[in-house]
Amino acid sequence: MKKPIIQKLAIIGVGLMGGSLALSLKNGGYVGEVIGIGRGIENLRNAFNLGIIDKYTQNLKDGVIDADVIVVAIPVESIVDIIDKAQTFMKDGAIITDVGSVKGEIVKNVDKILDSRLAFVGGHPVAGTEKSGADAAFSTLYKGSKCILTPSKSTKGEALEKIKLMWEKTGAEVIVMSTEDHDKILAAISHLPHMIAYSLVNTVDGIDDFDESIINYSAGGFKDFTRIASSSPEMWRDICSMNKTAIVDMIDRYMKELSQLKTLIEEDSHNEILDLFSKSKKARDSLG
Amino acid sequence: MKKPIIQKLAIIGVGLMGGSLALSLKNGGYVGEVIGIGRGIENLRNAFNLGIIDKYTQNLKDGVIDADVIVVAIPVESIVDIIDKAQTFMKDGAIITDVGSVKGEIVKNVDKILDSRLAFVGGHPVAGTEKSGADAAFSTLYKGSKCILTPSKSTKGEALEKIKLMWEKTGAEVIVMSTEDHDKILAAISHLPHMIAYSLVNTVDGIDDFDESIINYSAGGFKDFTRIASSSPEMWRDICSMNKTAIVDMIDRYMKELSQLKTLIEEDSHNEILDLFSKSKKARDSLG
Repeated sequence: MKKPIIQKLAIIGVGLMGGSLALSLKNGGYVGEVIGIGRGIENLRNAFNLGIIDKYTQNLKDGVIDADVIVVAIPVESIVDIIDKAQTFMKDGAIITDVGSVKGEIVKNVDKILDSRLAFVGGHPVAGTEKSGADAAFSTLYKGSKCILTPSKSTKGEALEKIKLMWEKTGAEVIVMSTEDHDKILAAISHLPHMIAYSLVNTVDGIDDFDESIINYSAGGFKDFTRIASSSPEMWRDICSMNKTAIVDMIDRYMKELSQLKTLIEEDSHNEILDLFSKSKKARDSLG
Repeated sequence: MKKPIIQKLAIIGVGLMGGSLALSLKNGGYVGEVIGIGRGIENLRNAFNLGIIDKYTQNLKDGVIDADVIVVAIPVESIVDIIDKAQTFMKDGAIITDVGSVKGEIVKNVDKILDSRLAFVGGHPVAGTEKSGADAAFSTLYKGSKCILTPSKSTKGEALEKIKLMWEKTGAEVIVMSTEDHDKILAAISHLPHMIAYSLVNTVDGIDDFDESIINYSAGGFKDFTRIASSSPEMWRDICSMNKTAIVDMIDRYMKELSQLKTLIEEDSHNEILDLFSKSKKARDSLG
């Protein structure tokens, strides 16, 4: 057996993200023992029965006390709080990382509160599905995806290298950047599409010119397109709050682009419309 | 064997839409003979080999001369032209229908040019995938979908009943409405999402604040969301031209909705944001 790169790994929040990380590392033999920490006992039992974790507890202290690495995989708005509560129980030199899809607010606040005995590496594996919970976890979730790490003043010693190696072992490509760059990029490729989808569904749902709700006419295309509007409203409310500036900026850029298209349609500028659509198709096709 | 409801069916344009209709009717025994008419000989041969059509020709006259029903399944901007060219060869009492996703412009112009010996029923089966060509056709494409028919002054005698029955036999639910209602509904559930997707890809692709194109960070969600931006630029240029008023109206309604969300984010109105997202999730979840 290979020597694990992490002896004791604690996962706070054994859902799709945390659970898939644990599965991938366990399957590869890269981790000695995984302890799952969570509030819901059903989900923890599930995760244990699915082989995602080796032990579980609802007690934060018991869960983190021996851990070499602690991965915080809970909703973004609770990450700083739980690190603050748990840090006093952690052993010297323990490394904390997270998987939150917003980095500026989290890293800034962890930097403020973190005990100097500990190290923190802000992280965000850019992967996921619309499903959640330990049931949804699978070992190849991160394979071929990008994982962004945003080191800061709390990122001490070997912490960055260790967390980088951990993600690389899941098959992810690790990219290191500033929290600002991360938050801008995510606003564009993830947060903006969610704002767009929520607004589209509400626009169509709000049309009351017809007897029947016209959303019932929608075919597969509309359903696929608006699937992300089924995402957790609470989670997205919090992301809007924590990445406000970048999201508002991206909505502005987007509305400029859409206004431009609207003007071209109004002016019957067929060639320019064809150019715009062709440019878009080319960029989209490049993604596969 | 059942008595077919259509003896001789001509399909002008044996692609996904026309081919799937032919397959479904042939499989059910609802049609005596299907003649495929098209410009590309390869696609016609393919359709023949796949059992979609019984005969094929590149000659419009030979194709339509004996047909009882002629289905025009080609791009929207060519539908009126081809009906105009082909009608002189059609036999008295022949019924023409189309599958174009815009109805006002097409029906208005067919009403102007159609010979009084013939009948026309504007039609639009609301189904499809992003694929095209006879290869993409399958017999269950229309099962459970809605098919909208928009009768007009050219819709004479038994024409509406016959075309209604034809679509019902594919498993579609047939709904009869005005061309105006059709064009508004489609603008909302199909044309607007395409405008949104094209604009989103161009917005993200146009961000040049980073060394690498940030579109490369996109994960599954972005790819699914923007899949429709891979649709044919020519087709969508033509739809924009032919359903201009309704599309511009829907873009306006949509931008109002998105602006409102932007304001709520700027003002930290977390409860209102949660309400908006929850409303959207509920409407989206109802679609399954």
